[in-house]
Amino acid sequence: MTSGAPSAFIRPLVQRLHPYVPGEQPKVEGLIKLNTNENPYPPSPKVLADIKAAVDGRLRLYPNPSSELLRDKLAKFHGCKAENIIVGNGSDELLALAVRAFVEPVGQAQNWVKSRLLGKSYVQYFHPSYSLYPVLAAIHGARTNAAPLNLDFQMPSQKELKRGRQWDFQAALTFVTTPNAPTGSGNATAQLQELCAAQKGVVVLDEAYADFAKENALMLALKFPHVLVARTFSKAYSLCFQRVGYYVGARDLIAALQKIRDSYNVNGLGQIAALATLEDLPYYRANFRRIIGARQQLSYALAELGFQVFPSQANFIMVRPPRFPATTWLQKLRDRKILVRWFDDPVLRGYLRISIGTPEDVAALVKAAETILR
Amino acid sequence: MTSGAPSAFIRPLVQRLHPYVPGEQPKVEGLIKLNTNENPYPPSPKVLADIKAAVDGRLRLYPNPSSELLRDKLAKFHGCKAENIIVGNGSDELLALAVRAFVEPVGQAQNWVKSRLLGKSYVQYFHPSYSLYPVLAAIHGARTNAAPLNLDFQMPSQKELKRGRQWDFQAALTFVTTPNAPTGSGNATAQLQELCAAQKGVVVLDEAYADFAKENALMLALKFPHVLVARTFSKAYSLCFQRVGYYVGARDLIAALQKIRDSYNVNGLGQIAALATLEDLPYYRANFRRIIGARQQLSYALAELGFQVFPSQANFIMVRPPRFPATTWLQKLRDRKILVRWFDDPVLRGYLRISIGTPEDVAALVKAAETILR
Repeated sequence: MTSGAPSAFIRPLVQRLHPYVPGEQPKVEGLIKLNTNENPYPPSPKVLADIKAAVDGRLRLYPNPSSELLRDKLAKFHGCKAENIIVGNGSDELLALAVRAFVEPVGQAQNWVKSRLLGKSYVQYFHPSYSLYPVLAAIHGARTNAAPLNLDFQMPSQKELKRGRQWDFQAALTFVTTPNAPTGSGNATAQLQELCAAQKGVVVLDEAYADFAKENALMLALKFPHVLVARTFSKAYSLCFQRVGYYVGARDLIAALQKIRDSYNVNGLGQIAALATLEDLPYYRANFRRIIGARQQLSYALAELGFQVFPSQANFIMVRPPRFPATTWLQKLRDRKILVRWFDDPVLRGYLRISIGTPEDVAALVKAAETILR
Repeated sequence: MTSGAPSAFIRPLVQRLHPYVPGEQPKVEGLIKLNTNENPYPPSPKVLADIKAAVDGRLRLYPNPSSELLRDKLAKFHGCKAENIIVGNGSDELLALAVRAFVEPVGQAQNWVKSRLLGKSYVQYFHPSYSLYPVLAAIHGARTNAAPLNLDFQMPSQKELKRGRQWDFQAALTFVTTPNAPTGSGNATAQLQELCAAQKGVVVLDEAYADFAKENALMLALKFPHVLVARTFSKAYSLCFQRVGYYVGARDLIAALQKIRDSYNVNGLGQIAALATLEDLPYYRANFRRIIGARQQLSYALAELGFQVFPSQANFIMVRPPRFPATTWLQKLRDRKILVRWFDDPVLRGYLRISIGTPEDVAALVKAAETILR
């Protein structure tokens, strides 16, 4: 609410909400934008050509409501069936759908048999991870369980989770960002498998950054009846603008999500762009290698300058900058036209998250850091 | 659920849902598609050019998360402020958001002071109208109140609503499709104003077809604190493919909806297409006149052939076909490569809804009807 007075029209739950704050999309030109994990490379020429070729009178028609061709192609790509895939308006839509399909809002949990035993109102995730999860839980009226990562920002082992007592093996829905954001840490599939096997509710492995990692856990979505893997075309495939993400998972989970999504949830040019992307994967794989190379470069260079750099398997790194507080660095870099991300979070306040750009972006950032430290 | 057994992972509410069935998007070529109220004319050349010009490396970047430029332009167009506008991934997303923001799910109504008095769990609409509303209510776990239209499919007067006792003036949310679908009947703004003034909860005037009508009720969204008007670029502006709709309404209602939408809910090329559309309105107004002309032509011609034709202020007409059942007509027209819409609904079973195409489409339909009747 922008005004202070309670409204007679708006649900109290909604009136109390604090919205998710996305990273800044600056309006000034000429900034080096390393704040929202966008890919520094454009979509492939084939993707751009296919989109342009579709921009004609057909825009008057509805797109395929269930992204049928794209689901078929993704199914082939992942070795599963189209019924194991749902496409969303970005993976953000799909994360919200999972909360609505699998988690009982507080006050409605009595609808569920054995609700108390099964933690049906709980959305669970590690902290820090993707800051959207608690927002989605709050919107839905669900309870949250934010379990801390270890002090080195690694996911606790199964033994540690059991010993720690804060982890809820009964949670209706558990989100695991893997590789994690904003820390960048990767997870072994074996460890994720152990986690999935122990959970009684649905697990979403949010693999937005998996293409920059050593391994991914997609197989777990096809192995377990309660595991979904989320992927997106936004970051690895340079298509943030067009909002296309998807889940892979068991048929029954996917069917439940299909029932509650908007009828025409994925725009037509987005579907076309994603299809073309899957026909041009070598182009993107070359970009992954470039970005991983630049990530190494940047990590070494900043470590040299006294930054604490956390090992990353994503297209960003988390660092603890030296000498000045992180917010001072944020401002000083911005003064030099470089945008990075700072999170107003008790655990993250001392850190910055830096998206990996081109080698030129990396050089500019390192140079700016040197100047600031001089 | 595709399988019959109850799932331990999916909310019982979701397991019980029947999904909304959108009109068919046929895969065979060469059909005259008069089944989903798409505009027969393409987007303007300027719109197509502006989209094409934006298809480049910038697709790697996130779109503006709140459709800022588009909201500014829409605000100027409607004589309000940007804070009175929210843009959605098609107006379908916005209809769903209204249910989630303003209606308390059953079992959660106790969270709301005086919940019983105020009907906080009720979604209300006329029957027949847009068949998505009960689906959205069911997904949210809300109650529904479907109030019948008069026997001539006109909206009951205020006096009739009060006398009839089924209408709920306390409903948390009332959807009014105006002009109505699938009947096509228009409503006087004065009558809608009377209705809005009497409602204690939020009213959404769903004006998807307003550009084909004699008048619209947009002023009511700026007059009342509890009224939203929904508009879409899909039908009148030939942009179904790109999913852009919006609400106009009071700042507090809009702010509540902004808090619960997905962060990047409107794809970037859709925002660009909608912006370009607003710069090229004369092109679209000429199309409205063409479509209204074709609607007259088709209405007269079918009436001549013995169809009962309901007066329409939309880009479709509802008809009761002669001689054969409506489903037989549906099939016979399809055999002649013409697709129209039939609704499996007790009240609508005898009718067909026919979208208004080009004069050539109209001629082909009339000719097919003549052949069928011969």
